[in-house]
Amino acid sequence: MSVTAAKGFTAAGIAAGIKENGNPDLALVVNNGPRLAAAGVFTANRVKAAPVLWSQQVLKGGTVSAVVLNSGGANACTGPLGFQDTHATAEKAAEVLGLSAGEVAVASTGLIGVRLPMDKLLPGVEKAAGELSAHGGEKAAIAIKTTDTVHKTSVVEGDGWTVGGMAKGAGMLAPGLATMLVVLTTDADVDAPTLDKALRAATRTTFDRVDSDGCMSTNDTVLLLASGASETTPPYGEFAAAVERVCADLARQLIGDAEGASKDIRIEVTNAASEDDAVEVGRSIARNNLLKCAIHGEDPNWGRVLSAIGTTSAEFDPDALNVAINGVWVCKNGSVGEDRELVDMRYREVHIIADLAAGGDSAVIWANDLTADYVHENSAYSS
Amino acid sequence: MSVTAAKGFTAAGIAAGIKENGNPDLALVVNNGPRLAAAGVFTANRVKAAPVLWSQQVLKGGTVSAVVLNSGGANACTGPLGFQDTHATAEKAAEVLGLSAGEVAVASTGLIGVRLPMDKLLPGVEKAAGELSAHGGEKAAIAIKTTDTVHKTSVVEGDGWTVGGMAKGAGMLAPGLATMLVVLTTDADVDAPTLDKALRAATRTTFDRVDSDGCMSTNDTVLLLASGASETTPPYGEFAAAVERVCADLARQLIGDAEGASKDIRIEVTNAASEDDAVEVGRSIARNNLLKCAIHGEDPNWGRVLSAIGTTSAEFDPDALNVAINGVWVCKNGSVGEDRELVDMRYREVHIIADLAAGGDSAVIWANDLTADYVHENSAYSS
Repeated sequence: MSVTAAKGFTAAGIAAGIKENGNPDLALVVNNGPRLAAAGVFTANRVKAAPVLWSQQVLKGGTVSAVVLNSGGANACTGPLGFQDTHATAEKAAEVLGLSAGEVAVASTGLIGVRLPMDKLLPGVEKAAGELSAHGGEKAAIAIKTTDTVHKTSVVEGDGWTVGGMAKGAGMLAPGLATMLVVLTTDADVDAPTLDKALRAATRTTFDRVDSDGCMSTNDTVLLLASGASETTPPYGEFAAAVERVCADLARQLIGDAEGASKDIRIEVTNAASEDDAVEVGRSIARNNLLKCAIHGEDPNWGRVLSAIGTTSAEFDPDALNVAINGVWVCKNGSVGEDRELVDMRYREVHIIADLAAGGDSAVIWANDLTADYVHENSAYSS
Repeated sequence: MSVTAAKGFTAAGIAAGIKENGNPDLALVVNNGPRLAAAGVFTANRVKAAPVLWSQQVLKGGTVSAVVLNSGGANACTGPLGFQDTHATAEKAAEVLGLSAGEVAVASTGLIGVRLPMDKLLPGVEKAAGELSAHGGEKAAIAIKTTDTVHKTSVVEGDGWTVGGMAKGAGMLAPGLATMLVVLTTDADVDAPTLDKALRAATRTTFDRVDSDGCMSTNDTVLLLASGASETTPPYGEFAAAVERVCADLARQLIGDAEGASKDIRIEVTNAASEDDAVEVGRSIARNNLLKCAIHGEDPNWGRVLSAIGTTSAEFDPDALNVAINGVWVCKNGSVGEDRELVDMRYREVHIIADLAAGGDSAVIWANDLTADYVHENSAYSS
C-alpha cells in the first residue's frame, strides 16, 4: 500500500521514457489534505543535486502538496541548467494539478552529471497526473527503483491513523543519508514542526545508521507528508514510534537489497562512553573493506574488527575490548577469546558485537559485505 | 642491495618455519656501526601489535643495533603473552649477537590474533645470525613478504654516502601508515634527532599518502638506521631528499603490488585552501569504493569524485570544482565538462586531478582500484 496506505493521498507510477529500457521511471505522490504539512531530511553531502536544493527550499514553508520523483537520472552536477530543469518539473506538476510550484517537492536518482531528458519527463508528469489513484502507492514505489531488485514499502497502523511509505536505494548507501529516496505519508493530523521532530528522531537511528558501502550520495531525500484526513491527532510518542518503525523497516529492506551483497551485517557497539563514540566505532567497522571481505568469506576475522576500532577517537582501552561474532566471544580483553571455529556464518544475517568496556551507551549500524558482485555491478554500470 | 647497500650493515633472510608453506619468513638486519643511530615511525592505529609497542620503547633511546622482522604472524591482539614473545625475540637476538636487548627492534606482519610459534622463531633468529652478510639485503627483503608478489627495495647514492631500504606491504594499506614494514639504512654519519626529522618529513609525503584500501594496520613500522660507516655527514637538505626519494620509490612499489589491484591511481588535489584540505579531499576520493570500482571498469565516472569531495570539510564551492581524468577535464565548474569519451583509461596508471579552486596548496595521494580479485584475496585468505 506504500504511500497510499494513509487516507488523503493519491499516487501514480509510470514509464516516461527517461530510462532507455522502458521501465517505470516517474512517480507522483499527491497530498489531498485537508492538511498539507510536511517535513524533510536531505543528504549531508555538500555537493547536492538540483532537486535537493529545490526541495530544501520548498520544505522551508512546511507545506508540500505533491512530490515528483524520477529514476533514470540524478540531475546532480548539472549546473544552473539542471536547476532550471527541476524548477520546470515542479512548475509542470503545479500546472496540471492546479497547485503552486512552491509546494511541489522534486526528487531524482540515477547517474550523476547528466541532464534529464525534459522532453520525456514533462509529458510524463502530465501522464502520471492522469493516472493518480488511491491505490497507486505500489506503482509509485516501483517507478523509483534503480538497481533495486525489489521495491520497498512499509505500513504501520495506529489507533485510527496510519503511517506508510516507500523507499528506493541499493548502492551509495551511507549515513547522511544513503542514496535513497523515501516518501512517507500519514493521515494523522500533525503539524509541520511535529512532523519534523518525529522524522529527524527516526532517521537519526534508522536511515542514518545504514552504511552499505561508505559512499554518501548527492541526492538523498526523505519526506514525510501529513494529510490530516483521519481527523486524529495521536499522542506524540505513539506517532514518533510509528514513524520510526516504518523508517527502520524500510532501512532494513535497503540493506537486504544492497548491490551485490551476500550478507547483512548488524554491528552493535556496546558499553561505549557515549552514543557518539558508539556510532563512530560502528561506522568504522562498517566501512572496513578487509572485514567486509572476510564476512563475505564467512571468516570470523575479529582482528580486522579491532584494527577498525583502533582508528577511531572513541574512548577505550585496547586491552579491554571484547568482540562477539554470531554469539561467540572470539576476542576477550583485546586478545584471543573463544574458539573461532565455533562461529557459524552460513546465514545471510551476521551479528557483530563490539564491547568497548568504557561506559553505558550503545548503537547499532547496519552494513553489507564486500563482494565480487558489488565490484562487477559498480564497474560495469555507470550510476 | 636493499638494506645492505649502505656500508656498515649486514643482513640475512631465512625460512624459520613460521610460515607453514616453508617460504622465507625471518629477516635480521644488523648495524655494525661505528654509529648506531636510529629513528622510527609507527602506525597511528590505537590497537598496536606487541612488536610496535616494544620497538617504540627501543626507539626512544635513539639507538638500534639490530632489527628482527618476521612474516607469517602479526603478533597483534595477543595480550601480555604476545608482548613476552616479542621481548624474548629481542633477548634472543641480543644473546646471539652480543648486544643489549634494549637496542633490538622487532617488527612482525601476518595474521592478527594468533601467537607466534616461538619454538620456530627463536631458533630462526640464531640461524639468521649465522647467515648475516654484507650481501644479505635481498634475502632479508624476500623474507618479509606476505601477500606481496615481489620484494621491494630501493637505493639512492649521495656524495660518498648511501640510503637504501626494503619494504613489504600489499593489503591494509592506508595512512598512518600502510600494513607495511620498512627498514631504511644509511652509512651517512647522522645523529638520531636528524634521522628522526628526515624520516618524519619523508613519511609524511610518501607512505602516509598511500591509501590502497582505507584500512589502517596494527603493525606498521618504518625504521631508519645510520651506521656512520661512510664517515661523511651530508648537508641536511641532501640527506633528507635522499631519504624521501627512497621512501617515495618504495611507496610507489607498494601501490604497484597492492592486493588484487589492476590500476594505480594518482590523485592530485590542487588549488586547495590548505595542504590539510588537499590531503583530506585526496583521501576521501581514494577511499570511495564506488569510484574505485568505476576506475576498475575504466569508466571516467567524475560524479563519484564530486560526491566524495562533498563529504569533506575542505573549503570549496561546489559550483567551482573541476576534475580531470587522464588529462581530460570531464568536470568544469561543478558540472559537465569535456566529453568523457575522450578519456583513455587502458593503462595501469590513472591520473585524477581535483581542482578545488579555493587556494594555492596541493597534495598527491596514491590509491588502487577495487577489484573482484581484491575481494577474493581478502575473503579466502585470513590475514
